[in-house]
Amino acid sequence: MTTTSDPVETAGATAAPTASDREKATTTSSGSGPRVDVPTLEHHLLGRWKEERAQARRLVAEHPELWKREGIAKEEHRELTLAHMKQLAPLGHVHLAFPKRLGGGDNAGANLVGFEEMVAADPSLQIKAGVQWGLFASAIFHLGTPEQQDRLLPGAMDLSVPGAFAMTETGHGSDVASIGTTATYDPETEEFVIHTPFRGAWKDYLGNAAVHATAATVFAQLVTNGVNHGVHCFYVPVRETNPDGTAGAFLPGVGGEDDGQKGGLNGIDNGRLHFDHVRVPRTDLLARYGQVAADGSYTSSIDSPGRRFFTMLGALVQGRVSLDGAAVAASKIGLAIAVKYAAERRQFAPSAGVEELTLLDYATHRRRLFPRIAETYASHFAHDGLLDLFHTVFSGEEDTPATREDLETTAAALKSASTWFALDTLQECREACGGAGFLTENRFTSLRSDLDVYVTFEGDNHVLLQLVAKRLVGEFGKEMARATRSPGGMARFVVDQAVDAALHRTPLARAAQVLADAGDVRRAANNLRDEETQRKLLADRVATMVEEVAMGLRPALKADPAVAQEIFDNHQVQLIEAAKAYADLLRWEAFTDALPKVPDAGTREVLTWLRDIFGLTLVERNLAWYLLHGRLSATRAQTVTSSIDRLLKKIRPHVVDLVDAWGYGPEHLRAPIASGAEKARQDEARDYYRALRASGKEPVREKAIRKA
Amino acid sequence: MTTTSDPVETAGATAAPTASDREKATTTSSGSGPRVDVPTLEHHLLGRWKEERAQARRLVAEHPELWKREGIAKEEHRELTLAHMKQLAPLGHVHLAFPKRLGGGDNAGANLVGFEEMVAADPSLQIKAGVQWGLFASAIFHLGTPEQQDRLLPGAMDLSVPGAFAMTETGHGSDVASIGTTATYDPETEEFVIHTPFRGAWKDYLGNAAVHATAATVFAQLVTNGVNHGVHCFYVPVRETNPDGTAGAFLPGVGGEDDGQKGGLNGIDNGRLHFDHVRVPRTDLLARYGQVAADGSYTSSIDSPGRRFFTMLGALVQGRVSLDGAAVAASKIGLAIAVKYAAERRQFAPSAGVEELTLLDYATHRRRLFPRIAETYASHFAHDGLLDLFHTVFSGEEDTPATREDLETTAAALKSASTWFALDTLQECREACGGAGFLTENRFTSLRSDLDVYVTFEGDNHVLLQLVAKRLVGEFGKEMARATRSPGGMARFVVDQAVDAALHRTPLARAAQVLADAGDVRRAANNLRDEETQRKLLADRVATMVEEVAMGLRPALKADPAVAQEIFDNHQVQLIEAAKAYADLLRWEAFTDALPKVPDAGTREVLTWLRDIFGLTLVERNLAWYLLHGRLSATRAQTVTSSIDRLLKKIRPHVVDLVDAWGYGPEHLRAPIASGAEKARQDEARDYYRALRASGKEPVREKAIRKA
Repeated sequence: MTTTSDPVETAGATAAPTASDREKATTTSSGSGPRVDVPTLEHHLLGRWKEERAQARRLVAEHPELWKREGIAKEEHRELTLAHMKQLAPLGHVHLAFPKRLGGGDNAGANLVGFEEMVAADPSLQIKAGVQWGLFASAIFHLGTPEQQDRLLPGAMDLSVPGAFAMTETGHGSDVASIGTTATYDPETEEFVIHTPFRGAWKDYLGNAAVHATAATVFAQLVTNGVNHGVHCFYVPVRETNPDGTAGAFLPGVGGEDDGQKGGLNGIDNGRLHFDHVRVPRTDLLARYGQVAADGSYTSSIDSPGRRFFTMLGALVQGRVSLDGAAVAASKIGLAIAVKYAAERRQFAPSAGVEELTLLDYATHRRRLFPRIAETYASHFAHDGLLDLFHTVFSGEEDTPATREDLETTAAALKSASTWFALDTLQECREACGGAGFLTENRFTSLRSDLDVYVTFEGDNHVLLQLVAKRLVGEFGKEMARATRSPGGMARFVVDQAVDAALHRTPLARAAQVLADAGDVRRAANNLRDEETQRKLLADRVATMVEEVAMGLRPALKADPAVAQEIFDNHQVQLIEAAKAYADLLRWEAFTDALPKVPDAGTREVLTWLRDIFGLTLVERNLAWYLLHGRLSATRAQTVTSSIDRLLKKIRPHVVDLVDAWGYGPEHLRAPIASGAEKARQDEARDYYRALRASGKEPVREKAIRKA
Repeated sequence: MTTTSDPVETAGATAAPTASDREKATTTSSGSGPRVDVPTLEHHLLGRWKEERAQARRLVAEHPELWKREGIAKEEHRELTLAHMKQLAPLGHVHLAFPKRLGGGDNAGANLVGFEEMVAADPSLQIKAGVQWGLFASAIFHLGTPEQQDRLLPGAMDLSVPGAFAMTETGHGSDVASIGTTATYDPETEEFVIHTPFRGAWKDYLGNAAVHATAATVFAQLVTNGVNHGVHCFYVPVRETNPDGTAGAFLPGVGGEDDGQKGGLNGIDNGRLHFDHVRVPRTDLLARYGQVAADGSYTSSIDSPGRRFFTMLGALVQGRVSLDGAAVAASKIGLAIAVKYAAERRQFAPSAGVEELTLLDYATHRRRLFPRIAETYASHFAHDGLLDLFHTVFSGEEDTPATREDLETTAAALKSASTWFALDTLQECREACGGAGFLTENRFTSLRSDLDVYVTFEGDNHVLLQLVAKRLVGEFGKEMARATRSPGGMARFVVDQAVDAALHRTPLARAAQVLADAGDVRRAANNLRDEETQRKLLADRVATMVEEVAMGLRPALKADPAVAQEIFDNHQVQLIEAAKAYADLLRWEAFTDALPKVPDAGTREVLTWLRDIFGLTLVERNLAWYLLHGRLSATRAQTVTSSIDRLLKKIRPHVVDLVDAWGYGPEHLRAPIASGAEKARQDEARDYYRALRASGKEPVREKAIRKA
């Protein structure tokens, strides 16, 4: 035995299999059946911005100084994270979204790809970079005029002006329209007076606000000539810049507080800001969507104050898109670690004298991990589609109100699904690795803590799902209104249009051939592994749920406010459930659409099993619904679980390949338990017992003596 | 507005309502319906060891220096925690379980009550104290002879010998029987040679091992005269004690490593230990259940090596019991904070000009929090029963193999249920409080991180549930064997005995009048709020699941090992599910049994609604099962959710009372968001807007102008 630290263990990451080892391994993984071509799949999964994604991963792999340092004080972590941002700024990756004329790349999609991969280095780096370039600078970019971009973006881009994105207030988080901060125009001096009228209107939870920010994009109620034009964004310097470039004291009238220690992401200095009649020039209202002239008269290209508000907020959708991507990446990292460990770790011998089983040979372990591999693939492909749509809109390729609305709905649905999924998955992985999973060095707890807030920031998931549901119900309502105006009316409508309304309007599901034979679901369910059967079961559920909730909400349209509120309250849970079902469908559709594009036949076959696992798992999760709505017979429903179990066994030989294909190497995983150390320890133990037996000195077991 | 830190906010805990405020509040909470008598319920919930529990809570409340310090380095946290243990040791609470002759209290139950309440101060303190007194000293107490107790317990009790409990190895966690460490008897010197033969046999994850332990109770394979008698426990000094009482260098032959940063509980110095032919005297084998004479001959009062092993491990069941209690306490703290905040926090107005709704007025929020209040009450009462049973066995009142087995099964079932529930609940609470929930000061993330490992230590929950299921299946098998030997045979058996076997053998469910009319469940389900209906639905599910899995496993008895393993594998997931259903039933039974004992009629009525919420939530969670097994008609099943929703509205006026009755005051909750600060901020904002309106200077909304 080694009495000092085991070199295999401490070497950790470097002892892990290399890419060529992995390539070799695939040829031996599964006997005569199909096999996963790992390098080809890995390349394919890089997606549309292959080079940018690979480059971002290389950046993480080659710069260990960017990797999260665990167990350090928040003050140190904050400074390190800022230093890492300064290291990133000159490389230009972080500027890809900005205009070429200012040194950017005019490439919205490629930009997000780079951002989301930063989660593999340190989620604090991803989010603090997101605050600076994805929120603060983005607000200037998307809400400012070209003149304001030219004037204000360079400092935000090169980090000479670290900034906070001051939207949320202590008293108002999700309900941005109700914030209390005011920006009152003073025509005398041609200035806006930014003011915090009460404690609840303090800006809160703002990244960079506690220490580093010297400016902020502040959202406030714009008041001019006695009229409140609603929430607008203002560029407001908040701290002096010291001669060495660091942030100095608050500027006059500005104050704030540190939010202190958080459940995670302690590399970011979240804090509070408040303003006591702080004056900024008229020209620092970010004026793309609304302008105030010298005399105080207000103009906007968007007449409706409501639509104007949502257009401004919508410009910031990229945060949600990139959180979706980062959450999927974190799930991959967690699952890759847990699966590699479970493939080696052995526990309990089925009977005396037999070798202990690996964790993957336990049905419970397969149940805990494998459906999550399937769901991660589904989320991956859905995110790819979302990135595409985001790029289409933000590159201007197809920037219409309809595509923007699709983008917002899809981002809200997928961000909710993937961020919750990441937390659940990281927790399941941590538990599946027992005590070793609780050690920070094995990543799960650290990633989970950092990702925790993803489910409530950039849109609380429950609020986002409600937006999704309202959109679905709204589309249904429009279709219904159309149908009731035409002869034939409601009956046909309920069968056909509901589905169409719920699904065809959204891009990822546009291709869905839904429920042409709506009445046939039950008969069609004869083969649950049939793609069309799965599609019908999933799509029909969304359509039916939307229809039910839409019909339930109808009376609210003509009711007085109190009754309407009561009706809404009675349907709120259903609304959320309908939106979740929709997110599930989006992901299943994305996975299914991706299958024909997978380059290798064997890989495609294994991924099809995986897609079936995802589809059937969704059906299993909602089995009561399918039974209650007569979509599955009891007999058929009873086969769902056994079908899944068979598929889980089938993919057993492929799971290491499937997680390897995600392309996260030892420098990304960095978990000693996924380094091969466990196998080395077992080999050593096996050799010891073998030698002991051979020596003739092995003690006899008391049990054996008693038997004899 | 206040531009400096808000005194209400920073005063935090002290601004929270006092006990007398709360008493007052109950009279106004719910109009004409029943009301919760908070002081009476609070007193009642203190349970059998009222004074000890109240005293432990007072200790926490009155000693802020014991409260977890957040964001400090693990080194500092470890020293603080040790210092707090030294502060506790002379008070004697922590010694209640030990013999009176050594300064203890011979009171197993009261002792655990005190321990589990420590979680309100700092979970690290609870667990590090648990390592010292609940594991290390307990091993000496329960596995040692009276002579060994007299010799070794005083140092363990007064903390002059901080100790590690060295059972788990890197290579073997749950499977203790397979550990690699050996203790080989050398009759020449009358010593045991403790040895770690390979890296996988290093002791791992041991509290106190990284820094503080000067001794350890080491589990090793006892080998004497060439025979391995299985795992036994040895008292092994591991470090020198410095003159100042601190731990010094490792003793010769002993080595180790720090486990480093963990996902939580960083006040505990977990670490690894290994032994290179370390010699301990023959008399330091803890010899209650197995002795080695000077000549090396082995004797034991328990013939079967298997039974002996499980008896030794069973002596340590108290860890599981206290984790169950601590997990329930942590759930209470989390829910109390989230509910108090949600009762004040307002968000979104249902229509313009109307006041914003409190979070509790949202159906989703009620759904997220209220069923958890119900489940917490159920877990509370179940834990009370478990404590009783534990005390009955460990006080010797009724210490039989049957009561021990009942205790182990119940502890395994409840510990699994309550520790998972605590994690889920703390997470839901954190999300329900949005960004504020992510701030460490509001407790959720900190408690959740610390409690994370509760689900895998002192028995991994999945392994524990498997033990529970095997017990249930075993009882079923015994009954079946009896039935098949008698005339009448299987048919009657399957209907009656299965249920009896599964339920009547275990204490908490012993009183259950189960399924006298097994065939009538469907008819009886006419009123889902009927107690007998709920009991039948829940008990029948357990009985049926146990029967199904027992029948499924039967062929394994006569199969060869490989086939048997395959059969087991095919039923493993079902086994776990059956055990979970059993834990649910135990908790529902405990809640139901507790109702008649609740002293106040109004309180009893509200708690009965809460019990119904718990029962129906369990049915709703498993609705597909009830439908597939014909236990609920589709029509009836469709009413489950609406019944729950009605009950959730009904308890809406009582939820603050219900969490107040748990007896955690501001010094235990310590969360600024539960301090009344939110209401103060809203009052300030409301006053501001009222004054603005009154002044005639309120800006007109653009929307209003456009409408006009």
